[in-house]
Amino acid sequence: MKAIIITIGDELLIGQTVNTNSAWLGSEISLLGFDVPRMISIHDNREDILNILEETTGKYDIALITGGLGPTSDDITKPALCEFFGTRLIPDNEVLMMIETMLKKRGLPLNENNVRQAEVPESCRVLYNAMGTAPGMWFEKGGTVFIAMPGVPYEMKYIMTEHVLPELRSRYHSQVIIHKNVMTYGLSESMLAETLEKFESSLPSEIRLAYLPSFGIIKLRLTAKGTNKTHLTGIINEQLKKLYMILPEYIYGEDEEPLEKVTGNLLRGKNQTIATVESCTGGNLAHMFTSIPGSSCYFKGSLVAYDNRIKTDVLNIPPHILKRYGAVSKQVAGLMASEARKLFKSDYTVATTGIAGPEGGTKTKPVGTIWIAVDSEKGLVTEKKYYGNDRTVNINRFSLAALNLLRKQILRS
Amino acid sequence: MKAIIITIGDELLIGQTVNTNSAWLGSEISLLGFDVPRMISIHDNREDILNILEETTGKYDIALITGGLGPTSDDITKPALCEFFGTRLIPDNEVLMMIETMLKKRGLPLNENNVRQAEVPESCRVLYNAMGTAPGMWFEKGGTVFIAMPGVPYEMKYIMTEHVLPELRSRYHSQVIIHKNVMTYGLSESMLAETLEKFESSLPSEIRLAYLPSFGIIKLRLTAKGTNKTHLTGIINEQLKKLYMILPEYIYGEDEEPLEKVTGNLLRGKNQTIATVESCTGGNLAHMFTSIPGSSCYFKGSLVAYDNRIKTDVLNIPPHILKRYGAVSKQVAGLMASEARKLFKSDYTVATTGIAGPEGGTKTKPVGTIWIAVDSEKGLVTEKKYYGNDRTVNINRFSLAALNLLRKQILRS
Repeated sequence: MKAIIITIGDELLIGQTVNTNSAWLGSEISLLGFDVPRMISIHDNREDILNILEETTGKYDIALITGGLGPTSDDITKPALCEFFGTRLIPDNEVLMMIETMLKKRGLPLNENNVRQAEVPESCRVLYNAMGTAPGMWFEKGGTVFIAMPGVPYEMKYIMTEHVLPELRSRYHSQVIIHKNVMTYGLSESMLAETLEKFESSLPSEIRLAYLPSFGIIKLRLTAKGTNKTHLTGIINEQLKKLYMILPEYIYGEDEEPLEKVTGNLLRGKNQTIATVESCTGGNLAHMFTSIPGSSCYFKGSLVAYDNRIKTDVLNIPPHILKRYGAVSKQVAGLMASEARKLFKSDYTVATTGIAGPEGGTKTKPVGTIWIAVDSEKGLVTEKKYYGNDRTVNINRFSLAALNLLRKQILRS
Repeated sequence: MKAIIITIGDELLIGQTVNTNSAWLGSEISLLGFDVPRMISIHDNREDILNILEETTGKYDIALITGGLGPTSDDITKPALCEFFGTRLIPDNEVLMMIETMLKKRGLPLNENNVRQAEVPESCRVLYNAMGTAPGMWFEKGGTVFIAMPGVPYEMKYIMTEHVLPELRSRYHSQVIIHKNVMTYGLSESMLAETLEKFESSLPSEIRLAYLPSFGIIKLRLTAKGTNKTHLTGIINEQLKKLYMILPEYIYGEDEEPLEKVTGNLLRGKNQTIATVESCTGGNLAHMFTSIPGSSCYFKGSLVAYDNRIKTDVLNIPPHILKRYGAVSKQVAGLMASEARKLFKSDYTVATTGIAGPEGGTKTKPVGTIWIAVDSEKGLVTEKKYYGNDRTVNINRFSLAALNLLRKQILRS
């Protein structure tokens, strides 16, 4: 089973936008057992679109196409599709109603462009888009399924997840592919590889192990391919168990679970609460917690004490302590956590103070230094870590390190 | 002048790696005046490589190729190139010496793989790589220049910057391309298109307008193509001026500037400070501000008052007000902003209270509702907005709306 991914948009070709859609689509479609021999990006240009559709027909089982479905004049994918499939645009009342509802909610009037967006090629199956105004479209020709979607990533992902993937999953199911993901934190890729060398070399032939690192988190993916689902499920679960035995303290969850969700669930399970008090993470820890739906039942709030005056005036940290040890210190991190626990009356607090960069580093406290503290009934714990020079990466790494210290404290009996 | 970008690597096609090489190459080569009608990713597979080289010959002026030049068995680009160009691998002493020096520096011995990496196709021009062990290669056939480089981004960039771009610049210098980007907030893509209809249809023939939307922000890109740089600069600046006249309140910046940076710069310019007080944005506003290097000179801090108890106990909002109007109300948003200004002693405060979803909506306050307030010496302003159903998107939209209200208040005289 072969798939081609076609992304349409001038912004891709002049390098203004990094093509994350292709990677996401490639990953999802590979998981269904499709081979993707080609990914192609082309201009918002009628002839280029027609050429690639022609080249694709009959050569691939499916073609996933994104981009060029917006309401403006540079978005020409829809008329090009009509031309290629020999059909015409007709109004779709359901799409129009969805657009009207969406606009009404935002207090916006319906204009001519919106009406044009509700027009769909007569011969396609419409893939409704609850996240935006451009619907997706499903065509078939010469043995190839063509699926056109908007280029806005979250709209494309919605249409894929709601409409396309379920249908493809039920249509093409000759080969059984099972994935199990284990989320790890705390070991680098090369350290993990060293630790897992024996495990990896003794894997059954049906199973492959992949390392998928992303900003301090490394996802280990076990993939089993074959024809017998029961057999594959059995052997993959066996290997999963082995992984837990080899890496007990580094595995924090499964599948795509983020660390903040796992940590939140631990709190929810114990009916306990958390507050964050942040300097160098600048609100990112609070943002991570509150990104999870339902976090209001354990997340009380956060104080971002960015300016030292907030540390003294709102948190009551004595100025002489700040002066003596500096803001980035074990002492200040500890006081931030314990004072914030009084302020927020939460079961746990987690505090961060460090130097995200690019400025502010010193010889003894270089950019990338962070002190973390977690306070609770179990007492106060602190930890010092060093990371790199990139501000964005540091804020991310700092936050994960703080979450992991908190998680370990919650788990401690 | 046409260029094609070919990236080779299984990791791209299964979506394990986001293709940043293509974007970088596309941007660099576009700046030289090349049009890039296609970007293609293919497997580390002999036949696929031979096919794409065949398809490319004579159709493009240059082909930029990356990937598959590493030392492991899945790296097969070099033998495939030899096959296609009818040549054979010969040892290159200069490459071997560079590899030896590099390894010695890292205390590593020379192994068989390294010796193989020092072999190059006899008919190519070698592009020496000071950043790694795989050299680049320059071939010509059928009117097309083929440039093969390693896939490691910083090695590829070194070879491009040191060898390829200077040579291409001196060989091809006919076309000039100039881009100008304007960042807008507050109008949907279709409303912008309506407003700019006349502007767009009366653009000089050398200039094209593109709409690049991303989470509530729409970037307008003007592209001028031609041969006379002075002329193009003149007419593109003229059109830029017109855009500012048509959309005075919606343009907040140029190029890739995020709204939080522009807003921060306004504060820095006036030597004023900001604090945020957040319910539904959960720390994201603080995170956006503090993502910008140097934000500590205007960002004082944030209180994330997620739990209503934090609103009453830390912010001193009277419980009867919360009970009477509800947490998502003009009154509570206003009190959050004004009380936080006392707490943080900042020149401005911005407050958010809303329903991010997926739970918590009511008939009168559906998911996606937000009240925003900005307090300062100029007084208190509030604004109500409605967005969609997706939590992540809402948090983002809420934050942008709050930033924009703040920006407008700072600009108000």
